[in-house]
Amino acid sequence: MASSSSYNCPCAACKFLRRKCMPGCIFAPYFPPEEPQKFANVHKIFGASNVSKLLHELLPHQREDAVNSLAYEAEARVKDPVYGCVGAISFLQRQVERLQKELDAANADLIRYACNDIPSGIACTAGSKFGSSHGSSAEAG
Amino acid sequence: MASSSSYNCPCAACKFLRRKCMPGCIFAPYFPPEEPQKFANVHKIFGASNVSKLLHELLPHQREDAVNSLAYEAEARVKDPVYGCVGAISFLQRQVERLQKELDAANADLIRYACNDIPSGIACTAGSKFGSSHGSSAEAG
Repeated sequence: MASSSSYNCPCAACKFLRRKCMPGCIFAPYFPPEEPQKFANVHKIFGASNVSKLLHELLPHQREDAVNSLAYEAEARVKDPVYGCVGAISFLQRQVERLQKELDAANADLIRYACNDIPSGIACTAGSKFGSSHGSSAEAG
Repeated sequence: MASSSSYNCPCAACKFLRRKCMPGCIFAPYFPPEEPQKFANVHKIFGASNVSKLLHELLPHQREDAVNSLAYEAEARVKDPVYGCVGAISFLQRQVERLQKELDAANADLIRYACNDIPSGIACTAGSKFGSSHGSSAEAG
Protein backbone atom coordinates (compact mmCIF):
# COMPACT_ATOMS: atom_id res chain seq x y z
CA MET A 1 0.00 0.00 0.00
CA ALA A 2 1.14 3.48 1.03
CA SER A 3 1.96 5.51 -2.00
CA SER A 4 2.89 8.92 -0.64
CA SER A 5 1.22 11.85 -2.30
CA SER A 6 2.64 15.28 -2.95
CA TYR A 7 1.61 18.30 -4.95
CA ASN A 8 3.80 17.11 -7.82
CA CYS A 9 2.36 13.63 -7.88
CA PRO A 10 -1.30 13.58 -6.84
CA CYS A 11 -2.90 10.24 -6.06
CA ALA A 12 -5.14 8.67 -8.72
CA ALA A 13 -8.27 9.89 -6.91
CA CYS A 14 -7.21 13.53 -6.68
CA LYS A 15 -5.98 13.43 -10.28
CA PHE A 16 -9.32 12.02 -11.41
CA LEU A 17 -11.26 14.56 -9.33
CA ARG A 18 -8.92 17.38 -10.48
CA ARG A 19 -8.15 18.57 -7.02
CA LYS A 20 -5.01 19.22 -5.03
CA CYS A 21 -3.78 16.10 -3.23
CA MET A 22 -3.24 17.36 0.31
CA PRO A 23 -1.12 15.65 2.96
CA GLY A 24 -3.37 13.21 4.81
CA CYS A 25 -5.57 12.64 1.74
CA ILE A 26 -7.79 9.64 2.66
CA PHE A 27 -7.42 8.15 -0.84
CA ALA A 28 -3.68 8.60 -1.41
CA PRO A 29 -2.36 5.48 0.37
CA TYR A 30 -4.73 3.19 -1.56
CA PHE A 31 -5.03 4.81 -4.99
CA PRO A 32 -1.50 5.28 -6.33
CA PRO A 33 -1.17 7.40 -9.47
CA GLU A 34 0.04 4.41 -11.48
CA GLU A 35 -3.34 2.66 -11.09
CA PRO A 36 -5.81 5.21 -12.47
CA GLN A 37 -8.41 2.60 -13.46
CA LYS A 38 -8.79 1.37 -9.88
CA PHE A 39 -10.16 4.74 -8.76
CA ALA A 40 -12.11 5.32 -11.97
CA ASN A 41 -14.04 2.07 -11.40
CA VAL A 42 -14.65 2.70 -7.70
CA HIS A 43 -15.80 6.25 -8.47
CA LYS A 44 -18.15 5.11 -11.24
CA ILE A 45 -19.83 2.42 -9.12
CA PHE A 46 -19.77 3.73 -5.55
CA GLY A 47 -19.04 7.43 -5.92
CA ALA A 48 -16.03 9.18 -4.38
CA SER A 49 -17.95 10.64 -1.44
CA ASN A 50 -19.44 7.25 -0.45
CA VAL A 51 -15.99 5.68 -0.52
CA SER A 52 -14.46 8.54 1.46
CA LYS A 53 -17.26 8.25 4.05
CA LEU A 54 -16.78 4.49 4.32
CA LEU A 55 -13.00 4.82 4.75
CA HIS A 56 -13.41 7.45 7.47
CA GLU A 57 -15.71 5.07 9.36
CA LEU A 58 -13.06 2.32 9.41
CA LEU A 59 -9.92 1.89 11.43
CA PRO A 60 -6.76 2.78 9.48
CA HIS A 61 -5.56 -0.85 9.39
CA GLN A 62 -8.86 -1.96 7.81
CA ARG A 63 -8.82 0.55 4.96
CA GLU A 64 -6.53 -1.22 2.53
CA ASP A 65 -8.64 -4.41 2.59
CA ALA A 66 -11.79 -2.32 2.24
CA VAL A 67 -10.43 -0.45 -0.79
CA ASN A 68 -9.29 -3.68 -2.42
CA SER A 69 -12.67 -5.33 -1.94
CA LEU A 70 -14.44 -2.20 -3.24
CA ALA A 71 -12.12 -2.15 -6.26
CA TYR A 72 -12.86 -5.84 -6.92
CA GLU A 73 -16.63 -5.26 -6.71
CA ALA A 74 -16.42 -2.15 -8.86
CA GLU A 75 -14.38 -3.88 -11.58
CA ALA A 76 -16.83 -6.80 -11.59
CA ARG A 77 -19.80 -4.40 -11.92
CA VAL A 78 -18.10 -2.50 -14.77
CA LYS A 79 -17.52 -5.78 -16.61
CA ASP A 80 -20.97 -7.20 -15.81
CA PRO A 81 -23.44 -4.38 -15.07
CA VAL A 82 -26.30 -6.82 -14.40
CA TYR A 83 -24.76 -9.23 -11.91
CA GLY A 84 -21.41 -7.72 -10.88
CA CYS A 85 -19.50 -9.94 -8.49
CA VAL A 86 -22.74 -11.64 -7.43
CA GLY A 87 -22.29 -13.60 -10.69
CA ALA A 88 -19.06 -15.03 -9.23
CA ILE A 89 -20.89 -15.95 -6.01
CA SER A 90 -23.60 -17.84 -7.93
CA PHE A 91 -20.96 -19.64 -9.99
CA LEU A 92 -18.99 -20.65 -6.89
CA GLN A 93 -22.15 -21.79 -5.06
CA ARG A 94 -23.03 -24.08 -7.98
CA GLN A 95 -19.46 -25.39 -8.02
CA VAL A 96 -19.60 -26.14 -4.26
CA GLU A 97 -22.91 -27.99 -4.70
CA ARG A 98 -21.55 -30.05 -7.60
CA LEU A 99 -18.30 -30.92 -5.80
CA GLN A 100 -20.19 -31.86 -2.64
CA LYS A 101 -22.44 -34.21 -4.64
CA GLU A 102 -19.42 -35.79 -6.40
CA LEU A 103 -17.66 -36.18 -3.05
CA ASP A 104 -20.72 -37.75 -1.42
CA ALA A 105 -20.98 -40.21 -4.32
CA ALA A 106 -17.26 -41.06 -4.16
CA ASN A 107 -17.47 -41.56 -0.38
CA ALA A 108 -20.53 -43.79 -0.80
CA ASP A 109 -18.54 -45.90 -3.30
CA LEU A 110 -15.60 -46.07 -0.91
CA ILE A 111 -17.82 -47.27 1.93
CA ARG A 112 -19.23 -49.97 -0.34
CA TYR A 113 -15.69 -51.04 -1.30
CA ALA A 114 -14.62 -51.04 2.33
CA CYS A 115 -17.67 -53.11 3.31
CA ASN A 116 -16.96 -55.49 0.43
CA ASP A 117 -20.18 -54.75 -1.48
CA ILE A 118 -18.05 -54.16 -4.57
CA PRO A 119 -15.24 -56.68 -5.28
CA SER A 120 -11.99 -54.76 -5.62
CA GLY A 121 -9.85 -55.01 -8.74
CA ILE A 122 -12.88 -55.29 -11.03
CA ALA A 123 -11.58 -52.79 -13.52
CA CYS A 124 -8.62 -50.48 -13.63
CA THR A 125 -10.48 -48.78 -16.48
CA ALA A 126 -12.72 -47.39 -13.77
CA GLY A 127 -10.08 -44.67 -13.71
CA SER A 128 -11.93 -43.03 -16.59
CA LYS A 129 -14.90 -42.49 -14.26
CA PHE A 130 -12.84 -41.08 -11.43
CA GLY A 131 -10.81 -38.97 -13.82
CA SER A 132 -13.83 -36.76 -14.48
CA SER A 133 -13.15 -34.72 -11.37
CA HIS A 134 -9.95 -33.33 -12.83
CA GLY A 135 -11.99 -31.30 -15.28
CA SER A 136 -13.66 -29.63 -12.34
CA SER A 137 -10.27 -29.15 -10.74
CA ALA A 138 -9.12 -27.09 -13.70
CA GLU A 139 -12.38 -25.16 -13.63
CA ALA A 140 -11.85 -24.37 -9.95
CA GLY A 141 -8.49 -22.75 -10.60
CA MET B 1 -41.35 -7.49 -9.35
CA ALA B 2 -43.58 -4.67 -10.60
CA SER B 3 -45.02 -2.80 -7.68
CA SER B 4 -47.05 -0.01 -9.25
CA SER B 5 -46.48 3.42 -7.81
CA SER B 6 -48.95 6.21 -7.36
CA TYR B 7 -49.01 9.50 -5.56
CA ASN B 8 -50.70 7.84 -2.61
CA CYS B 9 -48.19 5.05 -2.34
CA PRO B 10 -44.72 6.19 -3.40
CA CYS B 11 -42.05 3.54 -4.00
CA ALA B 12 -39.46 2.98 -1.26
CA ALA B 13 -36.90 5.06 -3.19
CA CYS B 14 -39.13 8.13 -3.63
CA LYS B 15 -40.30 7.86 -0.04
CA PHE B 16 -36.66 7.71 1.15
CA LEU B 17 -35.68 10.62 -1.10
CA ARG B 18 -38.85 12.54 -0.10
CA ARG B 19 -39.93 13.20 -3.63
CA LYS B 20 -43.10 12.60 -5.63
CA CYS B 21 -43.17 9.14 -7.21
CA MET B 22 -44.08 9.92 -10.81
CA PRO B 23 -45.47 7.42 -13.31
CA GLY B 24 -42.52 5.77 -15.03
CA CYS B 25 -40.26 6.18 -11.96
CA ILE B 26 -37.17 4.05 -12.70
CA PHE B 27 -37.06 2.75 -9.11
CA ALA B 28 -40.73 1.96 -8.53
CA PRO B 29 -40.90 -1.53 -10.09
CA TYR B 30 -37.91 -2.76 -8.05
CA PHE B 31 -38.22 -0.94 -4.74
CA PRO B 32 -41.72 -1.58 -3.39
CA PRO B 33 -42.79 0.51 -0.37
CA GLU B 34 -42.95 -2.59 1.83
CA GLU B 35 -39.17 -3.12 1.51
CA PRO B 36 -37.72 0.20 2.69
CA GLN B 37 -34.40 -1.32 3.84
CA LYS B 38 -33.59 -2.57 0.33
CA PHE B 39 -33.42 0.98 -1.02
CA ALA B 40 -31.81 2.38 2.13
CA ASN B 41 -28.90 -0.06 1.75
CA VAL B 42 -28.49 0.50 -1.98
CA HIS B 43 -28.61 4.27 -1.48
CA LYS B 44 -26.05 4.16 1.34
CA ILE B 45 -23.54 2.07 -0.60
CA PHE B 46 -23.99 3.04 -4.25
CA GLY B 47 -25.93 6.29 -4.12
CA ALA B 48 -29.33 6.83 -5.75
CA SER B 49 -27.98 8.64 -8.80
CA ASN B 50 -25.42 5.91 -9.58
CA VAL B 51 -28.15 3.27 -9.37
CA SER B 52 -30.52 5.33 -11.52
CA LYS B 53 -27.75 5.81 -14.12
CA LEU B 54 -26.95 2.10 -14.12
CA LEU B 55 -30.61 1.11 -14.54
CA HIS B 56 -31.07 3.54 -17.43
CA GLU B 57 -28.08 1.97 -19.20
CA LEU B 58 -29.65 -1.51 -19.01
CA LEU B 59 -32.46 -3.09 -20.98
CA PRO B 60 -35.76 -3.21 -19.04
CA HIS B 61 -35.67 -7.01 -18.72
CA GLN B 62 -32.19 -6.84 -17.10
CA ARG B 63 -33.13 -4.31 -14.42
CA GLU B 64 -34.70 -6.58 -11.84
CA ASP B 65 -31.65 -8.88 -11.72
CA ALA B 66 -29.40 -5.83 -11.54
CA VAL B 67 -31.34 -4.34 -8.63
CA ASN B 68 -31.34 -7.63 -6.78
CA SER B 69 -27.60 -8.10 -7.19
CA LEU B 70 -26.99 -4.47 -6.12
CA ALA B 71 -29.23 -5.00 -3.08
CA TYR B 72 -27.30 -8.17 -2.20
CA GLU B 73 -23.95 -6.37 -2.47
CA ALA B 74 -25.22 -3.38 -0.53
CA GLU B 75 -26.58 -5.51 2.32
CA ALA B 76 -23.30 -7.44 2.49
CA ARG B 77 -21.33 -4.17 2.64
CA VAL B 78 -23.59 -2.75 5.36
CA LYS B 79 -23.05 -5.92 7.42
CA ASP B 80 -19.32 -6.14 6.69
CA PRO B 81 -17.92 -2.72 5.73
CA VAL B 82 -14.41 -4.08 5.19
CA TYR B 83 -15.01 -7.04 2.90
CA GLY B 84 -18.66 -6.81 1.79
CA CYS B 85 -19.69 -9.70 -0.42
CA VAL B 86 -16.05 -10.27 -1.39
CA GLY B 87 -15.85 -12.05 1.98
CA ALA B 88 -18.40 -14.57 0.67
CA ILE B 89 -16.33 -15.04 -2.49
CA SER B 90 -13.17 -15.78 -0.48
CA PHE B 91 -15.09 -18.21 1.74
CA LEU B 92 -16.56 -20.03 -1.27
CA GLN B 93 -13.20 -20.17 -3.04
CA ARG B 94 -11.62 -21.82 0.01
CA GLN B 95 -14.56 -24.25 0.19
CA VAL B 96 -14.13 -25.17 -3.50
CA GLU B 97 -10.40 -25.78 -2.97
CA ARG B 98 -11.02 -27.96 0.08
CA LEU B 99 -13.78 -30.00 -1.60
CA GLN B 100 -11.64 -30.46 -4.71
CA LYS B 101 -8.78 -31.79 -2.55
CA GLU B 102 -11.10 -34.16 -0.68
CA LEU B 103 -12.60 -35.35 -3.97
CA ASP B 104 -9.18 -35.92 -5.52
CA ALA B 105 -8.16 -37.97 -2.47
CA ALA B 106 -11.39 -40.00 -2.54
CA ASN B 107 -10.97 -40.66 -6.26
CA ALA B 108 -7.35 -41.73 -5.74
CA ASP B 109 -8.55 -44.21 -3.08
CA LEU B 110 -11.26 -45.49 -5.42
CA ILE B 111 -8.72 -46.06 -8.21
CA ARG B 112 -6.54 -47.97 -5.77
CA TYR B 113 -9.52 -50.11 -4.71
CA ALA B 114 -10.51 -50.70 -8.34
CA CYS B 115 -6.92 -51.70 -9.19
CA ASN B 116 -6.86 -54.00 -6.15
CA ASP B 117 -4.08 -52.15 -4.33
CA ILE B 118 -6.33 -52.09 -1.25
CA PRO B 119 -8.14 -55.33 -0.36
CA SER B 120 -11.85 -54.58 -0.13
CA GLY B 121 -13.82 -55.33 3.01
CA ILE B 122 -10.93 -54.46 5.32
CA ALA B 123 -13.02 -52.39 7.66
CA CYS B 124 -16.56 -51.18 7.67
CA THR B 125 -15.40 -48.76 10.35
CA ALA B 126 -13.71 -46.90 7.51
CA GLY B 127 -17.09 -45.18 7.32
CA SER B 128 -15.90 -42.86 10.07
CA LYS B 129 -13.22 -41.54 7.70
CA PHE B 130 -15.59 -41.03 4.80
CA GLY B 131 -18.22 -39.56 7.05
CA SER B 132 -16.09 -36.47 7.59
CA SER B 133 -17.36 -34.92 4.36
CA HIS B 134 -20.83 -34.55 5.73
CA GLY B 135 -19.57 -31.85 8.07
CA SER B 136 -18.50 -29.89 5.01
CA SER B 137 -21.88 -30.59 3.45
CA ALA B 138 -23.59 -28.84 6.31
CA GLU B 139 -21.12 -25.97 6.03
CA ALA B 140 -21.95 -25.60 2.34
CA GLY B 141 -25.63 -25.07 3.01
